Amino acid sequence: MARHSKRRRKEVGSSPGTLLFVGEQKTDQPRISVMAYSAETLDEQDIQAVDRLKSLRQSPSRKWINLIGIHDTTMLEKFGLQFDIHPLTLEDIGNTGHRPKIEEFENYLYLVLKMLQFDPAGKKIEAEQVSLILGPDFLISFQEAPGDVFEPVRQRIRKVKGRIRKAGCDYLAYALIDSIVDHYYLILERIGERIEALEEQIVAQEIRQQTLKEIHFLRNETIFMRKQIWPLREMISQLSKGEFDLVQPATHPFLSDVYDHVIQILDTVETYREMLGGLLELYMSSVSNRMNEVMKVLTIIATIFIPITFVAGIYGMNFDHMPELHWRWGYFGVWGIIAAMVLAMLLYFRKKKWL
Amino acid sequence: MARHSKRRRKEVGSSPGTLLFVGEQKTDQPRISVMAYSAETLDEQDIQAVDRLKSLRQSPSRKWINLIGIHDTTMLEKFGLQFDIHPLTLEDIGNTGHRPKIEEFENYLYLVLKMLQFDPAGKKIEAEQVSLILGPDFLISFQEAPGDVFEPVRQRIRKVKGRIRKAGCDYLAYALIDSIVDHYYLILERIGERIEALEEQIVAQEIRQQTLKEIHFLRNETIFMRKQIWPLREMISQLSKGEFDLVQPATHPFLSDVYDHVIQILDTVETYREMLGGLLELYMSSVSNRMNEVMKVLTIIATIFIPITFVAGIYGMNFDHMPELHWRWGYFGVWGIIAAMVLAMLLYFRKKKWL
Amino acid sequence: MARHSKRRRKEVGSSPGTLLFVGEQKTDQPRISVMAYSAETLDEQDIQAVDRLKSLRQSPSRKWINLIGIHDTTMLEKFGLQFDIHPLTLEDIGNTGHRPKIEEFENYLYLVLKMLQFDPAGKKIEAEQVSLILGPDFLISFQEAPGDVFEPVRQRIRKVKGRIRKAGCDYLAYALIDSIVDHYYLILERIGERIEALEEQIVAQEIRQQTLKEIHFLRNETIFMRKQIWPLREMISQLSKGEFDLVQPATHPFLSDVYDHVIQILDTVETYREMLGGLLELYMSSVSNRMNEVMKVLTIIATIFIPITFVAGIYGMNFDHMPELHWRWGYFGVWGIIAAMVLAMLLYFRKKKWL
Amino acid sequence: MARHSKRRRKEVGSSPGTLLFVGEQKTDQPRISVMAYSAETLDEQDIQAVDRLKSLRQSPSRKWINLIGIHDTTMLEKFGLQFDIHPLTLEDIGNTGHRPKIEEFENYLYLVLKMLQFDPAGKKIEAEQVSLILGPDFLISFQEAPGDVFEPVRQRIRKVKGRIRKAGCDYLAYALIDSIVDHYYLILERIGERIEALEEQIVAQEIRQQTLKEIHFLRNETIFMRKQIWPLREMISQLSKGEFDLVQPATHPFLSDVYDHVIQILDTVETYREMLGGLLELYMSSVSNRMNEVMKVLTIIATIFIPITFVAGIYGMNFDHMPELHWRWGYFGVWGIIAAMVLAMLLYFRKKKWL
Amino acid sequence: MARHSKRRRKEVGSSPGTLLFVGEQKTDQPRISVMAYSAETLDEQDIQAVDRLKSLRQSPSRKWINLIGIHDTTMLEKFGLQFDIHPLTLEDIGNTGHRPKIEEFENYLYLVLKMLQFDPAGKKIEAEQVSLILGPDFLISFQEAPGDVFEPVRQRIRKVKGRIRKAGCDYLAYALIDSIVDHYYLILERIGERIEALEEQIVAQEIRQQTLKEIHFLRNETIFMRKQIWPLREMISQLSKGEFDLVQPATHPFLSDVYDHVIQILDTVETYREMLGGLLELYMSSVSNRMNEVMKVLTIIATIFIPITFVAGIYGMNFDHMPELHWRWGYFGVWGIIAAMVLAMLLYFRKKKWL
Repeated sequence: MARHSKRRRKEVGSSPGTLLFVGEQKTDQPRISVMAYSAETLDEQDIQAVDRLKSLRQSPSRKWINLIGIHDTTMLEKFGLQFDIHPLTLEDIGNTGHRPKIEEFENYLYLVLKMLQFDPAGKKIEAEQVSLILGPDFLISFQEAPGDVFEPVRQRIRKVKGRIRKAGCDYLAYALIDSIVDHYYLILERIGERIEALEEQIVAQEIRQQTLKEIHFLRNETIFMRKQIWPLREMISQLSKGEFDLVQPATHPFLSDVYDHVIQILDTVETYREMLGGLLELYMSSVSNRMNEVMKVLTIIATIFIPITFVAGIYGMNFDHMPELHWRWGYFGVWGIIAAMVLAMLLYFRKKKWL
Repeated sequence: MARHSKRRRKEVGSSPGTLLFVGEQKTDQPRISVMAYSAETLDEQDIQAVDRLKSLRQSPSRKWINLIGIHDTTMLEKFGLQFDIHPLTLEDIGNTGHRPKIEEFENYLYLVLKMLQFDPAGKKIEAEQVSLILGPDFLISFQEAPGDVFEPVRQRIRKVKGRIRKAGCDYLAYALIDSIVDHYYLILERIGERIEALEEQIVAQEIRQQTLKEIHFLRNETIFMRKQIWPLREMISQLSKGEFDLVQPATHPFLSDVYDHVIQILDTVETYREMLGGLLELYMSSVSNRMNEVMKVLTIIATIFIPITFVAGIYGMNFDHMPELHWRWGYFGVWGIIAAMVLAMLLYFRKKKWL
Repeated sequence: MARHSKRRRKEVGSSPGTLLFVGEQKTDQPRISVMAYSAETLDEQDIQAVDRLKSLRQSPSRKWINLIGIHDTTMLEKFGLQFDIHPLTLEDIGNTGHRPKIEEFENYLYLVLKMLQFDPAGKKIEAEQVSLILGPDFLISFQEAPGDVFEPVRQRIRKVKGRIRKAGCDYLAYALIDSIVDHYYLILERIGERIEALEEQIVAQEIRQQTLKEIHFLRNETIFMRKQIWPLREMISQLSKGEFDLVQPATHPFLSDVYDHVIQILDTVETYREMLGGLLELYMSSVSNRMNEVMKVLTIIATIFIPITFVAGIYGMNFDHMPELHWRWGYFGVWGIIAAMVLAMLLYFRKKKWL
Repeated sequence: MARHSKRRRKEVGSSPGTLLFVGEQKTDQPRISVMAYSAETLDEQDIQAVDRLKSLRQSPSRKWINLIGIHDTTMLEKFGLQFDIHPLTLEDIGNTGHRPKIEEFENYLYLVLKMLQFDPAGKKIEAEQVSLILGPDFLISFQEAPGDVFEPVRQRIRKVKGRIRKAGCDYLAYALIDSIVDHYYLILERIGERIEALEEQIVAQEIRQQTLKEIHFLRNETIFMRKQIWPLREMISQLSKGEFDLVQPATHPFLSDVYDHVIQILDTVETYREMLGGLLELYMSSVSNRMNEVMKVLTIIATIFIPITFVAGIYGMNFDHMPELHWRWGYFGVWGIIAAMVLAMLLYFRKKKWL
Repeated sequence: MARHSKRRRKEVGSSPGTLLFVGEQKTDQPRISVMAYSAETLDEQDIQAVDRLKSLRQSPSRKWINLIGIHDTTMLEKFGLQFDIHPLTLEDIGNTGHRPKIEEFENYLYLVLKMLQFDPAGKKIEAEQVSLILGPDFLISFQEAPGDVFEPVRQRIRKVKGRIRKAGCDYLAYALIDSIVDHYYLILERIGERIEALEEQIVAQEIRQQTLKEIHFLRNETIFMRKQIWPLREMISQLSKGEFDLVQPATHPFLSDVYDHVIQILDTVETYREMLGGLLELYMSSVSNRMNEVMKVLTIIATIFIPITFVAGIYGMNFDHMPELHWRWGYFGVWGIIAAMVLAMLLYFRKKKWL
């Protein structure tokens, strides 16, 4: 549930712009890594003190500053000072309960995205908040925990020839967003496989309580996923339509491409939800069907044997005067009656199409 | 039900602008407290007579007038005269059955909001109507009952340094709205916890009638909550987009922030509703499953024992001529027949996968 | 059903503008009452002959002409001539199957509204069509049957001081619409009470077929109500936004007020529908739960007694050679076996959590 | 099913504008009837050869050409030549699987509408496609089969005085559309009556499989109906809003009137669908309720008699040593035990509120 | 599932514009066939080396280049060079997991469409991606596998007289899109037939598990189909409204025609989904009904025979002192009691309307 309701900004009623970390601390020591690059040069380093960023800021190269671990609010504050970041933005960075959104400030664009991952136990999807601050010649990314999702982008920067080295920071931002969106496909695939497994089980009529829980679980995950991804749609649409000056026209087709992917992902999530709904119905119908079958067996057996048991019961009575008991063929007559009753029942059932 | 249908304006067909208190009186004595402040000065006082507000109005400082208890219609009327409030606004203030809304008048903005709280028994959510009148240099807030929701704002005003002391009344209005919206998270958290508890119960297959009532109750609460919060969305959007002159551009980003929160809250309410729907389905499926299992046990037992009981019944008959009774191994033969029947049944059940 | 499908305009394919009364005649004799008023003067009279309206039309005062009983088509036609009413409007007035709508003609606005009332038996909601024709200095209202819904408005006119005496005919139209909308709250209240009663019944687990019918009935009534009120929304929105010259700006805030009420009413109707859906689910779940419980009792009893009855049946057989029958402790041994079987069953049930 | 999927235009991939009749031939011999009229003159005739239309086209009077039977593609082609009809229009006329639509061509408006009728057996609704071609001084209507739906219009033309004689061809087109729309009310009425009958049955708790089929059938019919009528909405809205030059302003209010009717019809169809959904739920709940009751009877009987039958079985055993059998009051004691057991059961059931 | 989740663009995070084939290779050897034509001339040939296209490109005739087999990425790259195709377009062509879309580039329009086909086993619908690149005087089409869907278009080109020979490449593009859309009707027809068969089965009350699976399967297919076709709607609407310069006004009415068909198809898919939902409900209701009937038979039999078997059991007891046993008419008296009990039960059942 914490996934849904942790999103309380701060102490109720406290002043806005108060820097507070709201979330679960996922890493010990914040780590700042910087890539300063131009078409020809590349300078990669890890930085301990935020103050060192000052000199960096003046350099003419494009700068990608990646900060892992956002629970250290003093550090965030220093960042804010170095890069003229609005207090509300800092507060948002430090609060992991936000929806994806885009906000334009005077000198930068602020973007919030959600990295999705299955937890180590593969039980449920976890969201990590990634914030991007896109300035004219720098991009700052904030991650909650270390992860390898941005590694391919780093490697592309390291290659001298790539387009990424020539393009501006907006293209770098695109590359990061694209990595995150690509990651969603991994989640989709795993969910897809599980739905497929479920479907096979249900079609094979293996009725287990476990199946129900799995459907329920997957449904909740798709609800969660849609909630995390849905706002991306509009946000990337805005980016790709040139509403922001910081995004150059050359980057628009790439952003349109990401937009297409987001739409596809949402489409697939929606399809999964519909399929899960269908599976639940199929499952419930199978249970119903099965019950029907069980009831029929019970009814047939009971309806045949209860009456003839009564007949046997009658001639088990100990009355002094029961003429049939003394008839020569009485016993065999009873068998005849019983056979007739059974036959009648069977015909009735056949007529009802129960047999 | 009163929560939903009390919203009848007045005697049917009576003249509009007739001042009438419609609602439940929640406090005894109306209480007026005033905070007049500027960046440097702060004057806090409680006022008995509304007339004293007249002089106050002329003062150059910003004024926050908080009125608790709106059932005293004569007092409301005096307020109206002092601050040139439109009769329709006064009527709306005195009627607690309104939806959140915003109305622009010549010299002020009128806002209606809903404070949500669990009742003392924690049974259901109660809505208290809060009206705000935002003028150029004053803000009047009307509460139904005393409460501590605005206390943190008061404390921020008392601190000399806060932004709130320097900013205009529109920022103060924002701070109050923000407090109210922040309070919604408390409700969400409690509902979230209860949903989580429910989910654990149901997944653990504890089937109780109580569970059903709890789902039903929480569903009604989310319906109620959404109804109270939904109109806020558009209203705050209007405020944050600069449609009103009384709201200064500097306050817009803060209002956008509140807007984001409202969206998040509505999102979560919607997610809760979906999850509750899923829980109900899971619960119903569990009941169905359980029934199926019960039926299977009954059927297996009945189907095995009814036929063999019949066999025993046959040889309990008292016919004079029943040759089997006199056979040497008759009794043991019957046991053989019974064993064969039981075996056949068991094989049948295994084939049907009931065992 | 007639409530839904009576809305057939005329003989299929006949010429438009053919004046025909379509509906159920609800009063005997049409009655025309006129209130001619200005800020200072008031002239109230009942009129027999429509022709007398001619002179009235020339008078400089504002005129409210109320016609009760619309089945007299010749009279309607005379009205049309007197006030230059378009044939299509006359046709619409005479046909009670219309949706609420607003139509602008050269010299007047034509409005259709629906009065809602529970029928005398309190069984179902009935709709009465009220048509308004708003001219520059007259308002004509057409009712199907006499009723007291407009009485409070009349009384407000009789008071010399009221705003209504000073304001134009558009304000009078507003007053009438407001009366009608206020009446909807009465319906809502009654439905609300019935839903509340239902909820108590169901939560108390009183399962009766009657409950089901009540839910079904109330659902149909909310569908009917929404259908009657929904179009009002847009129509009053248009009125309040100044799209029509005949409505003066001073009346707009009053119409906005009515608009808010209509939105509230629709909101509540929608909430009721959702609550009824929830009640139905709760009811069905209770039935299911109850059935489950019944089945468990049956299964426990049957599963315990059927096997032990079989044991008793075995030793009721009359074979000559049944060694157990002659054992000294045979009988008590059978009791021991039976006790063991019952115990095993009870343990099984406990394990299954059926006990 | 053919009602839904026959809509395949032609041989897959063949050239557009290929004239092919796609549908079911509903009449033998195409029949062309012409009404040429002006305010004073009227010339009515049946025409065999399409070529004769040539001279007619030059005449100054307004012309209504009605063609019944559209399977004769050569004739359609000749029509096309005579009146400069676009090949795509001709193709559309000859294909009965179209949705209602409106298309503007250089010299005419092309309209497709659907006549709805219950088939002779009253089993299901059948749609007949009616195409209209509205030129400046002619209107051509294409029907699949003869029918009397346009007869009232013809009669109105025959009357010298009617508005239709004075108005243009656009008014004639309106009159035809109006006739078709009026016909929908007949269908609605019949469906309404059947829903009412169903409701009575279900409320009276007559549970039959037939009921289910009727609900299912009516639901499919409303789906079909909505699908046929829905596109009319936008199409008539366009017509009435003056988007086309061929429709004169004087005709707009009449078209608005038809538009209102279409909205009403769609409204009612939607209401019917909701009511049918409600009926299905009510029916299913009744079945469930009934089952519950049946189960209770079974459980009560079985739970009372199975244990006491066991007691009787015990004393039917033939052990040599059964002391109770020889007790003086043993038999009556057994009766006492049985009575006690029955009483206990009854009390239990009363406690459970099953009795 | 692969149908839904294969849409992962490339290695997560890799550089955009990387040419990779993503999909299932459906043909061995790519095949390029070219039709170069003008109103008078036609040159048809198969080409092995992409380089040969160079000279072709200069020729003044219109060129249709059809490439079957898109897994050969080097060939795609050469294509890209020859026709100045953007790397993102090439990447999209090589990835079969796209939604239908349209993208405008400087010198061409890029269109993605989906061919739908039942797989050879008739089990499920398969989508093949068809990409079109429309330049000023050329059209390139990319297919995954050979197929005869474009054959009719080819034959129309071969005919000297067809409109297609005179019209531009945009008309050719229209013709191809039209072929693909026409193909959808074949799928619809097959689904329609299967729904009809299902409906007959269910109405005839043949309750089989298979039925459920078929409904489930068809539902998934309609979800899949809608997902593939839905985006076509907007895309063709854009084409037909003249948003792109490469599409000439003369082609617009033809594209509008395709647009109508797409709408019809989506309509029908939607109708099918509703009908399948209705069928599932009908099926489930039938199962429920059937169960009810089964239960009633069981209950009637059990309720009649269990009590009378008890009576027989009583007089099968072996007590020494059972006076009734020695009565002269005891046995017949028991029969009387039994008859009375049966009669009472039957009356009860009749009262309950179970018989």
